[in-house]
Amino acid sequence: MARLSSLLYFSITVLIFLHGSTAQQFPNECQLDQLNALEPSHVLKAEAGRIEVWDHHAPQLRCSGVSFVRYIIESQGLYLPSFLNTAKLSFVAKGQGLMGRVVPGCAETFQDSSVFQPGSGSPFGEGQGQGQGFRDMHQKVEHIRSGDTIATHPGVAQWFYNNGNQPLVIVAVMDLASHQNQLDRNPRPFYLAGKNPQGQSWLHGRGQQPQNNILNGFSPEVLAQAFKIDVRTAQQLQNQQDNRGNIVRVQGPFGVIRPPLKSQRPQETEANGLEETICSARCTDNLDDPSNADVYKPQLGYISILNSYDLPILRVLRLSALRGSIRQNAMVLPQWNANANAVLYVTDGEAQIQVVNDNGDRVFDGQVSQGQLLSIPQGFSVVKRATSDQFRWIEFKTNANAQINTLAGRTSVMRGLPLEVIANGYQISLEEARRVKFNTIETTLTHSSGPASYGRPRKADA
Amino acid sequence: MARLSSLLYFSITVLIFLHGSTAQQFPNECQLDQLNALEPSHVLKAEAGRIEVWDHHAPQLRCSGVSFVRYIIESQGLYLPSFLNTAKLSFVAKGQGLMGRVVPGCAETFQDSSVFQPGSGSPFGEGQGQGQGFRDMHQKVEHIRSGDTIATHPGVAQWFYNNGNQPLVIVAVMDLASHQNQLDRNPRPFYLAGKNPQGQSWLHGRGQQPQNNILNGFSPEVLAQAFKIDVRTAQQLQNQQDNRGNIVRVQGPFGVIRPPLKSQRPQETEANGLEETICSARCTDNLDDPSNADVYKPQLGYISILNSYDLPILRVLRLSALRGSIRQNAMVLPQWNANANAVLYVTDGEAQIQVVNDNGDRVFDGQVSQGQLLSIPQGFSVVKRATSDQFRWIEFKTNANAQINTLAGRTSVMRGLPLEVIANGYQISLEEARRVKFNTIETTLTHSSGPASYGRPRKADA
Amino acid sequence: MARLSSLLYFSITVLIFLHGSTAQQFPNECQLDQLNALEPSHVLKAEAGRIEVWDHHAPQLRCSGVSFVRYIIESQGLYLPSFLNTAKLSFVAKGQGLMGRVVPGCAETFQDSSVFQPGSGSPFGEGQGQGQGFRDMHQKVEHIRSGDTIATHPGVAQWFYNNGNQPLVIVAVMDLASHQNQLDRNPRPFYLAGKNPQGQSWLHGRGQQPQNNILNGFSPEVLAQAFKIDVRTAQQLQNQQDNRGNIVRVQGPFGVIRPPLKSQRPQETEANGLEETICSARCTDNLDDPSNADVYKPQLGYISILNSYDLPILRVLRLSALRGSIRQNAMVLPQWNANANAVLYVTDGEAQIQVVNDNGDRVFDGQVSQGQLLSIPQGFSVVKRATSDQFRWIEFKTNANAQINTLAGRTSVMRGLPLEVIANGYQISLEEARRVKFNTIETTLTHSSGPASYGRPRKADA
Repeated sequence: MARLSSLLYFSITVLIFLHGSTAQQFPNECQLDQLNALEPSHVLKAEAGRIEVWDHHAPQLRCSGVSFVRYIIESQGLYLPSFLNTAKLSFVAKGQGLMGRVVPGCAETFQDSSVFQPGSGSPFGEGQGQGQGFRDMHQKVEHIRSGDTIATHPGVAQWFYNNGNQPLVIVAVMDLASHQNQLDRNPRPFYLAGKNPQGQSWLHGRGQQPQNNILNGFSPEVLAQAFKIDVRTAQQLQNQQDNRGNIVRVQGPFGVIRPPLKSQRPQETEANGLEETICSARCTDNLDDPSNADVYKPQLGYISILNSYDLPILRVLRLSALRGSIRQNAMVLPQWNANANAVLYVTDGEAQIQVVNDNGDRVFDGQVSQGQLLSIPQGFSVVKRATSDQFRWIEFKTNANAQINTLAGRTSVMRGLPLEVIANGYQISLEEARRVKFNTIETTLTHSSGPASYGRPRKADA
Repeated sequence: MARLSSLLYFSITVLIFLHGSTAQQFPNECQLDQLNALEPSHVLKAEAGRIEVWDHHAPQLRCSGVSFVRYIIESQGLYLPSFLNTAKLSFVAKGQGLMGRVVPGCAETFQDSSVFQPGSGSPFGEGQGQGQGFRDMHQKVEHIRSGDTIATHPGVAQWFYNNGNQPLVIVAVMDLASHQNQLDRNPRPFYLAGKNPQGQSWLHGRGQQPQNNILNGFSPEVLAQAFKIDVRTAQQLQNQQDNRGNIVRVQGPFGVIRPPLKSQRPQETEANGLEETICSARCTDNLDDPSNADVYKPQLGYISILNSYDLPILRVLRLSALRGSIRQNAMVLPQWNANANAVLYVTDGEAQIQVVNDNGDRVFDGQVSQGQLLSIPQGFSVVKRATSDQFRWIEFKTNANAQINTLAGRTSVMRGLPLEVIANGYQISLEEARRVKFNTIETTLTHSSGPASYGRPRKADA
Repeated sequence: MARLSSLLYFSITVLIFLHGSTAQQFPNECQLDQLNALEPSHVLKAEAGRIEVWDHHAPQLRCSGVSFVRYIIESQGLYLPSFLNTAKLSFVAKGQGLMGRVVPGCAETFQDSSVFQPGSGSPFGEGQGQGQGFRDMHQKVEHIRSGDTIATHPGVAQWFYNNGNQPLVIVAVMDLASHQNQLDRNPRPFYLAGKNPQGQSWLHGRGQQPQNNILNGFSPEVLAQAFKIDVRTAQQLQNQQDNRGNIVRVQGPFGVIRPPLKSQRPQETEANGLEETICSARCTDNLDDPSNADVYKPQLGYISILNSYDLPILRVLRLSALRGSIRQNAMVLPQWNANANAVLYVTDGEAQIQVVNDNGDRVFDGQVSQGQLLSIPQGFSVVKRATSDQFRWIEFKTNANAQINTLAGRTSVMRGLPLEVIANGYQISLEEARRVKFNTIETTLTHSSGPASYGRPRKADA
């Protein structure tokens, strides 16, 4: 009996093994027969906010090769400077604040020539402002607000500060599969300051350890030598006793030099050979101004696209974004991404979405609502219909110039096919084929009859 | 006894596991000690033709990162529109036909301004032709014929129609390893119409399910809303009762607007910002005209190369092709691909081929004949000798500008080496080295003494 | 009892399997909690030198996606021509010699027009020099010396000859993870001549077989036909009886046409369409001339960088290099690579190095000395302090324009951050923050108090 069960165990072990082995030899991460609207799987709580991380091991995110994170920064919260091993595209879903990026290799600071009087030559000024007897200088600080889309290079340190009254909510996609990420396919934030007592719980084998800032890894003596400070201050830089997490509450005023100075930035800065590529490259754009929309229909909504023609830095990052906002009963015509994976994050309202895979199976058919994420792999077709007053979403795509192909409408693939192909393909008459091809004259957005009629036959509009 | 065997089982299980684990941790898919001339492993039969798929899990194809397929379309057969998750390079091996591609984001149609009278403004004309009371308009349709090489982007829908009397045979390579494919390393065709009852049998876990067209995945009601048609027609678009497969027989005439119209295409089309990249890019070239050959020797044959200098779109797709045609007793001098993997498909005749791997081992030594496929990984050396009246092949390479290095001949690596290196390397006299270096004055093609003398010593030509 | 142990075994097997399976499904090769200074793991001995290969399966090299090799070529030793499946960046650590590359597809030879008298038209001249009754012609030969950095494409054959009196030591990195390598992630040298009796011991499953040259894989008869030589000479080309390995001792003079001829190379060569990309592209640069250094401090040392702005060919290879030379007590300020992995090889002396990973853990803290290799993955911070009279190293980076971000100093990330961010992040006063930010005025190199004070608190410099 026991022997029999032993043999059973054996067989199962071997079977499991072989299955695993086969799966690994021929990875088919995109054999997706079921998609889900995803919620964050890890929450890192901090003094003045929280960081919510989606599990990048979820099959649909692994297929898309991205990871996703949401930063919720409370009023007066400061997200401490950190950098990543991946390119990142962020979207400000709510609130307003300040953002700073410190770009490696750039000129000492963008502010110094306008901050100091000519000839002063030293950062230790005459003691106006800031109460420390000198004027500060640092790299560019920008105002951010709802709708801003921010591109960040790997290795570039970035911080956020919420100077508004409501929470600042930022969502971001990290492109793990791009060659910009030269490590493995895990998101790895490197913190310059602070300490995250909960650790990088989304990484296998790192769950239990707290995540320290990178200065913590050096000996205090080395830091003292490098920064020309005393060892006690060096130890302070390691935040070992700090349990505030990576979003801390700022005590007192936050007197950084702010963007109004940006317009005063002298047009002729000294060239250091990196201007065109990195230092002066524009990295943000706002997608919430309907007057800049790429598709705008007063009754239905608008769609704005941000690709490398708008923001050339995206050519390097190989990412782009689409912002959509539609009203109740509007439908985004069925379409697929020709050359990109996409992840769709709902910022407001809710919608009924259907997604179809390469096998012609409906792999998603349901409601997505505010705060949920849906992955739409390359080639998978999707149709969206608003089921609330307003449905607004941001879609991140893993291509600097993601191309959409629609199934119906004036610029659709049906319009591009000869009638004979349609008639023979679907076994319909040329007259029916003509209706299939020409009845919908919109390109992207159209009216739907709304959720009421959903699932029940309705009269054709022809 | 039983316990002993249990332990044995255990050990074997563990060993198998460890072996598997090691192999996966250090994948060496290109440790190829044996190549084979490959035949299709899956055949999808359809009403008017068949699709033959090579197993992309075969070690040599996995090493090359490509999959391969052959479409055989009978007279009046229509290969229904489909698109892929990968870049594709196709070659028309036999026959003639029509081809249409529907490029996403392009202007409504390339034909409309020449189809309609000025001022008509509507596709519903005065009822001439086509018997439906209107003129059709659609994207570019091209004549294709034997020798045509066709580049297709991922996500771009394509159809073929055989308007000749003999079967139209098209072979195609799909580049799974390129960043153009953002899914896993499986070829995934998405069908816009039709139904494949046999399913995607080349995919693990999809073998038994039929493959539907992508419209099948949406609710008929959604389709009705999107296309502004009645639900019954929408259901028709799902081809659920259709068992014709992906190649269907066209009933009656196939009256699409044909390429002769192409020359009338107005030179000044309205710009939509995509012209240079996609919409008007030339995507086909014919490789069978000896007058355009890159190497031509009347007694021996010719070789034509198609790379991104000829067809700039290949720069994006990172693929190129080589067409060869040699006569009995001609030899292609030994060579290797410096920066690409190659797959060689025999279109006519047969040849004796030897392939050598990085270890200096002969990994292939045999006959390849019409319809067979041979993979030649980067760096592997290959020599080909025609053993039939005519040997013709197409080679697809995974680089937009694949470079060849020959071992012998006027532009060979031997010519580039100093005599002293040759003499010391092979321990031969300078006089012998001189012969090795200078005796062969051809660059690519030379006479061989043919299969009769193969394997037996022969007099040197010197 | 036995059954119990059986079950235990079972469980362990399953556990091991599951662990393995999980690890493979979610590869985290860069979960590096411990780095080591690496020494070669395989030594291939040859007649006139040896080839030392680092194990590219070591976790830190797998994370970086590179392999590393050291060639030690004795006086009058000739490293026989070979090519690789990867891009390669080499650095001459010691000695001097000659180097030849044979670039596929380039004009017949770069030397012929200057070697022959006008009108001679044939390589068989009037019997001056070389004693063989003809003049040789071949592709470019270059002098190499300590400090030279040499870029080599995949598939391009290269040879080295030591014409000095001391050993010629060359170290090289091979980029396995780049798309230039189209095979699996193993370094695969292909030899044109010679025989390596020890085989490719660094490859799993190839350890026991000798590695032959690629001519060995063809039938002698095929070679005889291809080279138009007799079969006996063809057999000689296969080096089957040769046990000298891949570095052989040259007998007698090595009379190749040397670089002084290079300056006579006619400015107007016939164009063959490849000039700009490959044939005439400069592929070497010397990094040991302090007058060309990017950072130079007389008391401390210098740092030279070679990227694609200096050597445009690196744009294609996606590699760059950094040469450093610092004196006792000098410190390279803590920094990280923003967009590249790096491997650091020590050419002279020794240093104390600390490396910090993404979790803020010190993953390396120790001495590295001459001949050792240290991998520094993307984003990992590193600080180096010379502990011998002179510390010199070469760093290879997997990006054509690798960017460094320093933690301390005039162009550091700290300088780019507003004081308020520093003060709040580290919970220090604005006055302390000011010191952290402004005390160190150097950019890259600074004084350290040396190994004596290492590990013990010291007085601050402030």
